[in-house]
Amino acid sequence: MRILLATNNAHKRDELRSIFPDHDILTPAEMGIAFDVEETGETFLANAILKAEALRVHLAEARAEGKHAEVAIIADDSGLCVDALGGAPGIYSARFGSPDGGKTELAASARNQLLIAALEAAKTRTAHFVCSMVALLENDRIIVAQESWMGEISEAPSAGTGGFGYDPVFFVPGLGKTAADLSPEEKNRFSHRGRASRVLAAALDEAASLPR
Amino acid sequence: MRILLATNNAHKRDELRSIFPDHDILTPAEMGIAFDVEETGETFLANAILKAEALRVHLAEARAEGKHAEVAIIADDSGLCVDALGGAPGIYSARFGSPDGGKTELAASARNQLLIAALEAAKTRTAHFVCSMVALLENDRIIVAQESWMGEISEAPSAGTGGFGYDPVFFVPGLGKTAADLSPEEKNRFSHRGRASRVLAAALDEAASLPR
Repeated sequence: MRILLATNNAHKRDELRSIFPDHDILTPAEMGIAFDVEETGETFLANAILKAEALRVHLAEARAEGKHAEVAIIADDSGLCVDALGGAPGIYSARFGSPDGGKTELAASARNQLLIAALEAAKTRTAHFVCSMVALLENDRIIVAQESWMGEISEAPSAGTGGFGYDPVFFVPGLGKTAADLSPEEKNRFSHRGRASRVLAAALDEAASLPR
Repeated sequence: MRILLATNNAHKRDELRSIFPDHDILTPAEMGIAFDVEETGETFLANAILKAEALRVHLAEARAEGKHAEVAIIADDSGLCVDALGGAPGIYSARFGSPDGGKTELAASARNQLLIAALEAAKTRTAHFVCSMVALLENDRIIVAQESWMGEISEAPSAGTGGFGYDPVFFVPGLGKTAADLSPEEKNRFSHRGRASRVLAAALDEAASLPR
């Protein structure tokens, strides 16, 4: 299958290539398509759909260009939900602590310090990452896999250098480590994004096997 | 898994029981829960999510009542999209031709006659059914399978008595029959709803197999 990703992030592209090795995965930039979407949705799912829908007009050309019988657009939206903060920062995870409503994003290390400070008096430190992953197929077909990863906000950032974003302060009790302490393979096995990818892949396989 | 359906339609319940034989499937009425949702969404998916979200508060009690480790709410929204009508009636399929904006629904036979009349001068009769099926799981997990069934609007209703709604005027070229001419098993094999159920089932199985 030809898959057109609704992101120009090469890290996400390579991660999906490892999860869907049999598919032909390209970013908009690699297809010569401009891609810039305002994330105005109120949920992870709504934002993932906004990103995917922005590329819908390119479904037909992606099929023609790739000479594939099937073609899909895949988009995702992710974030961290902290229970003591009522689920915040949630869909605003990237702009948490931004001095200007999101135009300028804080560095991840500054966001992590801010989050730890916000939880200083909190009675619970439980949190979960969420990843909403959407595949748009031709003929109005859609698949969504939204998965979560349960953990706790640590009292100090880990020294681990894996992952990115909130990973150094996301402690996973079952593993006894933060997300930043995991190898990429370990992280993919447990993470919200790895899980969502695998559920989506299983659904895509089933969809491809159905009689048309 | 305990599955709480976002419908009191016994026909839909029985259909899902045949597709998910290993699960314990109940309607809101069977759990003593009132269920009435206004379908104000602008897409099949939005309406399916509205129905499922209306039951979200009952996830925890469904688990307690069923003594199941896992519990899901499943909702669906379906309709017929006719190309010559710009995709109508779509999400308004049940209220097509209603004299009062949907408060009173026409009988299916009257709607079918109206649809045939609307296509009298149409250059193309292609159409597709869409079914958007949503599963809400605990911890913000969501699975969606939206599938379609491609066909044409026939020039007269078939005499077949299978199915319901638009089935007598939905002709499937590959089968040489309308949806109303199919046995329930044949219809489940090809229909938008049967397909969406199977894709959802595959995704649910994968989700259940992931490490938590």
